[in-house]
Amino acid sequence: MKLFLSSLFFCVTLAVFGQVERVEPPFWWAGMQQSDVQILCYGKDISQFDVSVNGLNITEVQKTTNPNYLFVTVATKNVSEGTYVLHFQKKGKTKFTYDFELKERRTASEARQGFDASDAMYLLMPDRFANGDPTNDSTKNTVEKVDRANNGGRHGGDIQGIINQLDYLEDLGFTALWSTPLLEDNEPSYSYHTYAQSDYYKIDPRYGTNEDYKQLASEMHKRDMKLVMDYVTNHWGSKHWMIQDLPTTDWIHIWKDGDANGFKRSNYRMTTQYDPNASEVDAEGCMNGWFDTTMPDMNQKNPLLLQYMIQNAIWWIEYADLDGFRVDTYSYNDKEAIAIWTKEIMKEYPNFNIVGEVWMHSPAEIAFWQKDSKIGAIQDFNSGLPSVMDFTLHDAFMQMFKETQGWDTGLQRAYDNFSNDFLYSDIDNILVFAGNHDTNRIAQIYGNDFDKIKQVFTMIFTVRGIPQFYYGDELGMMGDKEANGDGDIRKDFPGGWTGDIQNAFTEEGRTASQNQYHSFVKKVLNWRKEKEVMHTGKFLQYIPMDDVYVYFRYNASERVMVVLNNSEEEKTLSLNRFAEGLHGATSGTDIVSEEKITLQNSMQLAPRAALIIELTK
Amino acid sequence: MKLFLSSLFFCVTLAVFGQVERVEPPFWWAGMQQSDVQILCYGKDISQFDVSVNGLNITEVQKTTNPNYLFVTVATKNVSEGTYVLHFQKKGKTKFTYDFELKERRTASEARQGFDASDAMYLLMPDRFANGDPTNDSTKNTVEKVDRANNGGRHGGDIQGIINQLDYLEDLGFTALWSTPLLEDNEPSYSYHTYAQSDYYKIDPRYGTNEDYKQLASEMHKRDMKLVMDYVTNHWGSKHWMIQDLPTTDWIHIWKDGDANGFKRSNYRMTTQYDPNASEVDAEGCMNGWFDTTMPDMNQKNPLLLQYMIQNAIWWIEYADLDGFRVDTYSYNDKEAIAIWTKEIMKEYPNFNIVGEVWMHSPAEIAFWQKDSKIGAIQDFNSGLPSVMDFTLHDAFMQMFKETQGWDTGLQRAYDNFSNDFLYSDIDNILVFAGNHDTNRIAQIYGNDFDKIKQVFTMIFTVRGIPQFYYGDELGMMGDKEANGDGDIRKDFPGGWTGDIQNAFTEEGRTASQNQYHSFVKKVLNWRKEKEVMHTGKFLQYIPMDDVYVYFRYNASERVMVVLNNSEEEKTLSLNRFAEGLHGATSGTDIVSEEKITLQNSMQLAPRAALIIELTK
Repeated sequence: MKLFLSSLFFCVTLAVFGQVERVEPPFWWAGMQQSDVQILCYGKDISQFDVSVNGLNITEVQKTTNPNYLFVTVATKNVSEGTYVLHFQKKGKTKFTYDFELKERRTASEARQGFDASDAMYLLMPDRFANGDPTNDSTKNTVEKVDRANNGGRHGGDIQGIINQLDYLEDLGFTALWSTPLLEDNEPSYSYHTYAQSDYYKIDPRYGTNEDYKQLASEMHKRDMKLVMDYVTNHWGSKHWMIQDLPTTDWIHIWKDGDANGFKRSNYRMTTQYDPNASEVDAEGCMNGWFDTTMPDMNQKNPLLLQYMIQNAIWWIEYADLDGFRVDTYSYNDKEAIAIWTKEIMKEYPNFNIVGEVWMHSPAEIAFWQKDSKIGAIQDFNSGLPSVMDFTLHDAFMQMFKETQGWDTGLQRAYDNFSNDFLYSDIDNILVFAGNHDTNRIAQIYGNDFDKIKQVFTMIFTVRGIPQFYYGDELGMMGDKEANGDGDIRKDFPGGWTGDIQNAFTEEGRTASQNQYHSFVKKVLNWRKEKEVMHTGKFLQYIPMDDVYVYFRYNASERVMVVLNNSEEEKTLSLNRFAEGLHGATSGTDIVSEEKITLQNSMQLAPRAALIIELTK
Repeated sequence: MKLFLSSLFFCVTLAVFGQVERVEPPFWWAGMQQSDVQILCYGKDISQFDVSVNGLNITEVQKTTNPNYLFVTVATKNVSEGTYVLHFQKKGKTKFTYDFELKERRTASEARQGFDASDAMYLLMPDRFANGDPTNDSTKNTVEKVDRANNGGRHGGDIQGIINQLDYLEDLGFTALWSTPLLEDNEPSYSYHTYAQSDYYKIDPRYGTNEDYKQLASEMHKRDMKLVMDYVTNHWGSKHWMIQDLPTTDWIHIWKDGDANGFKRSNYRMTTQYDPNASEVDAEGCMNGWFDTTMPDMNQKNPLLLQYMIQNAIWWIEYADLDGFRVDTYSYNDKEAIAIWTKEIMKEYPNFNIVGEVWMHSPAEIAFWQKDSKIGAIQDFNSGLPSVMDFTLHDAFMQMFKETQGWDTGLQRAYDNFSNDFLYSDIDNILVFAGNHDTNRIAQIYGNDFDKIKQVFTMIFTVRGIPQFYYGDELGMMGDKEANGDGDIRKDFPGGWTGDIQNAFTEEGRTASQNQYHSFVKKVLNWRKEKEVMHTGKFLQYIPMDDVYVYFRYNASERVMVVLNNSEEEKTLSLNRFAEGLHGATSGTDIVSEEKITLQNSMQLAPRAALIIELTK
């Protein structure tokens, strides 16, 4: 009954006279594309009951080998809002009921506009950003308690903390927020990363409530900001209530040659997803292997599970008023099933955006996964996934500002990366980033050298695609994953906790060095916000020479020239080579220094110059 | 007049009464697809003459700014063999004539079968392989004289030398020969590489005559071997007679900001060929820049030149009875023009094969250039080029047998390469190689360690595609390009010259070490020759583990298992993982040792084992 009680907070209409412990989704909306709703009913021996619904047509009732599950599909097409009562009967007599509500949708909910290249996205880990409500740092029904001294433990950050800092983020110039997962992760340890989720309909109480999450979206929308949910389809947490009482034996991939839990680690070889030469055993080893011991690998080939996941994703969009998904370990899923999941969501919300984590190391391999990919089409595959991440540019960021120009080193890495842009079906819908919660901190990589990191930021904010930024990088936060583990790249944001020695959310609270990073980001992002040419403008690049890389963004009315000097030396840059990009312009304004720049014959570049020049028409 | 005299040897029907010094093509054939023949007539002020032909329809006469050229297009469709006299007239009076012959084609010439994956291709440099005719080491009309002491000089190898060693090559198991270029290269120095050709209708007299080349093909065909010509479209030699007296100013790319000859070096950035972000100046800098000072870059956008090149290529196929082209620096050409060139040849000979040198470093970038590429199609490009080279596998060969297994090191490099095979439109028509005349010797890379090089050879001979082998590698020849220059990787084949201390063409002449290499190559290639499964069989690979890589080739009737142990340790290989590949087989025969191998449960692998196991049905 503990489970039942804990689910009360969102199932306010639940009326129970017996064995229904969980109903998922707990409610739905009238007028959805996804109108045939598969209602999962869970309770002791619930499959022994017959089901009927007043006012709704039941199109299918499915039972599994586990008698505690009943999957009831109801047709809601052209059915109006209201409460529809599920009757669970035995021998014609109702033993208990459930009030299933069809809610009214928000106005124009289906037309919601997802994040795009006009946005700048801030990624944070909710446990590590700001603790707005110290009363929920530990809760009764979650196992792991707060322990801020443990860098792999729960630190107490939460949704209220994020809400409290929305002004900070808005001021900094960000327009979209991707938080790592917020749903309940009831692992006994290491649950702060929250990728092993134990309840897909409930915000982890240590982060707040479902209502809090909804409020976060609402507060963001007031500021014209967008909320992106980190969704995990590949695996659930080992403590998920369904994993504890599997609906079917094929709900997850249980390995016969695995450990007692059926665990076998994935071989992580995502190339087997498309390699026609790959052996079946290797392909299955990638897709069906577990990402980690606490993360049973979901079998999305099971149609009950797939439908559950589709509905759950749509439920969150509709419920919390979301603007996008980031999908974890996208390329480890069964690719046909995840494509169905993706397409169903996009059918419901055609202007929504979903970015998949496809952590591979060649543009063709990543591009394979983007919607309408010509690479995917070679294998008759179309993921339907609107957006992917530019991991190869990230690879380049790890090295290029440490290197001098060579055939394939230094700035050439960036140039080469962009030369493959045509492989992507939608190059503007690609995440551009220098770090995330799984990579070394960019300040670590460049030894907290602002002049180099400024160049990284310049590139992220000015090339094609959607800039994505990792929390704390605006302070030059350090972190070395290889040396010190994940905790080191996921440190608490200074000032997020009452009593923190430093409050980096305020100018006064930041050190001079931190303000240097912060000001640069703020300056460029607030400028970028209104510059259409930076969102959808074309890209024009020049082969880097002598450690200087020049590129342009342009459209019919605006032109921006970016110049990066990847050396400690002053340079004289001859300009006649750039006639196509300059398009007649003879002067411009550096948007950071706000200085006028003459663009005739040649220009002088300071060591490590990073110029973003708006050309004068 | 010197030029005129030197062209006599192939223009036996030439009748001259005046100013025609050259006619190209000197003759043609009846019944060709390419039936509208553009005849280039060259002579002092020849453009002042009117032209007529007895029995042939002139469809077009084109003059250029240079009065010494006249381009006369004649229609030969449905015209029978015979001699057709070109009359050069002034005021209605014939001043001189040229007997243009339409020859009879070989039987089924159009159906000639190009090289394919059933072949094994031997690449040699003719100046460095064998000197069959010491009388032509230096010739009167070629500037550079023989100097065997100079590793960048002419050494005297020739076509007769190759003919003399065809038995050697046949015995070794090769079925196709690619010789680097053989057309006249009259540069004063460094002409031995012969990529700066000065006459496109004439074999360099230091290699022999056009007739000798024809005889080489004929001798090869007697042995069921195929002859592949190295064709250069991107550039001609600076001493080419047309470069010395340009037909038009746009015949080559003359750079205004270049040197006195109009030379500016290519930036070599082939990505500009498809990069939609590339600047025009960079794209032109790649395509129109010169490959080297002695190699003026041809402007194939000039339709007269393009047609000249198409006809010249077809002329050589028809004349010498060729089985394929290897096209030098294919991806530096104007890509639309080279596609036309390629397609015109393939239209004439639909079963012919052409492999282009596309020296790039990702499968997508290389695959772009193959006929019907889905990658090329993204840019609405279709080269029509049947075959490309697996340069990324070559990149892997440079390192993998020096490394232990890592996420992306050691044998994983090969696995990863093959996982991208689907990017190619025709993966069986791809050249597989560990070295050529531009790369470090494989024996150098692996310190003449036969056990490692044996693994390289095993892979080249057993994976999908067309194995290509560099002369001397069957002896473990060393050569370090970086340290000692090109000459070091292009040493004379021992025994190719009378008086050589060693004759490695014979078993007795070879050292024990050389015989070890030689025997291995001979054994595997002669086995491969008859094994259809190795030519067209499917490929099935397993993720390398513990430094052991296992793959299979299979078709409906045959299966071959290849096992490579990339370590100095003995290994026990558990076999149950390979059930899909073994397909029930429980034993096989290692084709090198000819030993029976039991394939149950597990097998023992010697250090550096390289097993090619024919599975017992």
